[in-house]
Amino acid sequence: MDQEAKRALLHKDRQRVWHPFTQMKDYALQDHLLIEKAEGIYLYDADGNRYYDTVSSWWVNVHGHGHSRIKQAIARQLDETDHIMFSGFTHRPAIELADKLIDIAPCGLGKVFYSDNGSTAVEVALKMSFQYWRHVGKPAKSKFAYLENSYHGDTLGAVSVGGVDLFHSTFKPLLFDGYRLPSPLVSEWSDGRPTPEAAESSVAEALEAVRRLFESSAAEIAGLIVEPMIQAAGGMLMHPAAYVTGLRELCTRYEVHLIADEVAVGFGRTGTMFACEHAGISPDLLCLSKGLTAGMMPLAVTLCTDTIYEAFYDDYETLKTFFHGHSFTGNPLACAVALESLRIFEEESVLEHVGNVSSALREQIRRFEAFSHIAGIRQLGMVAAFELYEDAGSRRSYPFAERRGYRLYLEALKEGLILRPLGDTLYYWLPHCTSTAQLEDIVDRTCTVLERLGYR
Amino acid sequence: MDQEAKRALLHKDRQRVWHPFTQMKDYALQDHLLIEKAEGIYLYDADGNRYYDTVSSWWVNVHGHGHSRIKQAIARQLDETDHIMFSGFTHRPAIELADKLIDIAPCGLGKVFYSDNGSTAVEVALKMSFQYWRHVGKPAKSKFAYLENSYHGDTLGAVSVGGVDLFHSTFKPLLFDGYRLPSPLVSEWSDGRPTPEAAESSVAEALEAVRRLFESSAAEIAGLIVEPMIQAAGGMLMHPAAYVTGLRELCTRYEVHLIADEVAVGFGRTGTMFACEHAGISPDLLCLSKGLTAGMMPLAVTLCTDTIYEAFYDDYETLKTFFHGHSFTGNPLACAVALESLRIFEEESVLEHVGNVSSALREQIRRFEAFSHIAGIRQLGMVAAFELYEDAGSRRSYPFAERRGYRLYLEALKEGLILRPLGDTLYYWLPHCTSTAQLEDIVDRTCTVLERLGYR
Repeated sequence: MDQEAKRALLHKDRQRVWHPFTQMKDYALQDHLLIEKAEGIYLYDADGNRYYDTVSSWWVNVHGHGHSRIKQAIARQLDETDHIMFSGFTHRPAIELADKLIDIAPCGLGKVFYSDNGSTAVEVALKMSFQYWRHVGKPAKSKFAYLENSYHGDTLGAVSVGGVDLFHSTFKPLLFDGYRLPSPLVSEWSDGRPTPEAAESSVAEALEAVRRLFESSAAEIAGLIVEPMIQAAGGMLMHPAAYVTGLRELCTRYEVHLIADEVAVGFGRTGTMFACEHAGISPDLLCLSKGLTAGMMPLAVTLCTDTIYEAFYDDYETLKTFFHGHSFTGNPLACAVALESLRIFEEESVLEHVGNVSSALREQIRRFEAFSHIAGIRQLGMVAAFELYEDAGSRRSYPFAERRGYRLYLEALKEGLILRPLGDTLYYWLPHCTSTAQLEDIVDRTCTVLERLGYR
Repeated sequence: MDQEAKRALLHKDRQRVWHPFTQMKDYALQDHLLIEKAEGIYLYDADGNRYYDTVSSWWVNVHGHGHSRIKQAIARQLDETDHIMFSGFTHRPAIELADKLIDIAPCGLGKVFYSDNGSTAVEVALKMSFQYWRHVGKPAKSKFAYLENSYHGDTLGAVSVGGVDLFHSTFKPLLFDGYRLPSPLVSEWSDGRPTPEAAESSVAEALEAVRRLFESSAAEIAGLIVEPMIQAAGGMLMHPAAYVTGLRELCTRYEVHLIADEVAVGFGRTGTMFACEHAGISPDLLCLSKGLTAGMMPLAVTLCTDTIYEAFYDDYETLKTFFHGHSFTGNPLACAVALESLRIFEEESVLEHVGNVSSALREQIRRFEAFSHIAGIRQLGMVAAFELYEDAGSRRSYPFAERRGYRLYLEALKEGLILRPLGDTLYYWLPHCTSTAQLEDIVDRTCTVLERLGYR
């Protein structure tokens, strides 16, 4: 792109676009990075500079950018149908995708409800759970339990079960009340890598808090929502599978829906197709988006048990219909893309490759142990994270105003690396297509940036 | 499609898919219509039967299905970038679309915030308005006013400002409180076509209710949300432009944000590009989706004034950031499609054509005046509606349990016509590509169906 065209676009961007989760004043002097091309794990800016997309474009990309099979799938679908309404009407791509998802999802999930993004998938789950208990004669079960540090989306229902105060507290007067539970292992991670004994006792403590809540209040709790294995936006907080297994047992015992929000962690990101597989459990409701379309375009699903579905199935006059729907529900293009992505998973043995790269990632991140300002190094599947500390020994954080993470992001760009720290938590959220050679290069470059900024 | 493939798909559909806004038991014996091809205003089922898509596939389609220019725009964009994240990064399609939207939108709207669907566009508007008043030192302005019969989406924030009890009342315990205002002209339409005098006095009365509310409570009201010109899901209730003009005056006078939800009525559906143009006013926040991508795929925007934007623009440490964003924010494919749709509007004089077809529609619907069980015939742009009555003279409705609208939908399918009545309100929501010959054919077929069902 010539410099004049670039300047003109960036001028309009600054003048007319409000970017998400962005303090626009940060870009008063600094341009947003103008991306012109995307291929595999790489993004290219308007000057032809190449960057590793180590965050999979906000945790969505799976098979790499510009995958030829995905592009062909879109072209094929466009020759059949573009968008048609999904109430009263149906079509092959949405049916086949629902069928396939139920085949691969944790067992017991029998129905697929489509929507457009993670927030709507969560809203659908909350509304289904809430309405279910009315239909089965337990309307007092109307509240939700959720975890501190949890993030489930930005619509106000999803915000109501969010536990990241920076994002969520402003909107308190618009939110419904719920029960906030402690996250397991948060203090242990902030103490470095927890020992197996510390992890076990932290999980036991967190589950005991759930048990106590259910013991006193299960009669008014519809569901508990959790991001299984990794609380992502809350700071890439990882917990052992035993915590999820424990939640399943307690939810079953106390008749509370277990809502698994796998919007971020689904589709192989944690090493298994779905994060619940680590725990060998099935939730009552499962929310999926992001990786569903391999990161190509908006689509989401909420899967539920047949038990939940059947409580809504009745004569119209009983008014048990689930009155929820978005215009583009079951969009044929997006469904065709998702189907092709699942075929790629199978035919190209993607999870096997993820297993190999995950092992390499586990090895590679040990290199960060040599940095004295770094602690809490952790990894699961294609995700790895650690914190920057002013004093890693005593876990003393840098002053908030220094915005170490933001400065790291700017510096990493110069090294051809897209890093998007959450506060002072640096993480990778790699696409499945990452090769081990690319991984090594990414860690090399990260080390260079960290050294340059004095974290050694 | 061969019969076996069709049966297999419909079996899986019944077994595994939960359709939106659908009592699934309605389809225990009746199949969902399996659509295999879409072209222009027509949908084709798996047996090759052709249907007029008179509802533009849930109010989204604009230039007809499978438009070659839109298909080409997708292919072109796929060769450039698929999806890339929109926080810290930017790209040509999103910048150019924002630029174009601000050029054509009512004046005074200076910034574009992207999201995925109508519900999220509304949630963004509500959250922006709410947070704005905190930033300017008026945190007491935290509630919203909305109209009875309004529909603004299905996420819980949007449901909180919804006024259709059938959809919304179930979720009451999860909703935030607001002020419900009367819709203008509801009782007048139920009395037949209102006289100009009746319309004027109804508007004056509805505006007086707003004035009284603002007089007593504006200090705690952040915004008022309205579907300008047509309350769509509430029953295609139309009001004069004077009502919207009056709302603008009152909102300005009492310092309340006017939030225009043009998700359904935007992009030419009412005859003007945006419905607010009928009233010659600009809202403070404008929500758009559906027709934005010509009905091809999910995308939404919330436009706001520079005044609102500037209240969030500050040093990061002040924590005035608007912490909201969806993974697929500013999806390049969807933006490319929307841009191409706007080019088609210009280059193919779409609004001029809409003007001609609208006039023909206004004439054609007079044919329904001859039906003794029909009243309330009304039209604006490409939208027309009327009610079915057991006794049109006294406006006595049919018993709810008879589900006249649903039976009409089933009967119309046999006539190659997709009609999706809202209760007993029958409506057209035609795509802009409709020709006058097609329009006549649609009305002919509608008359046939109505006669067959005994409404003459």
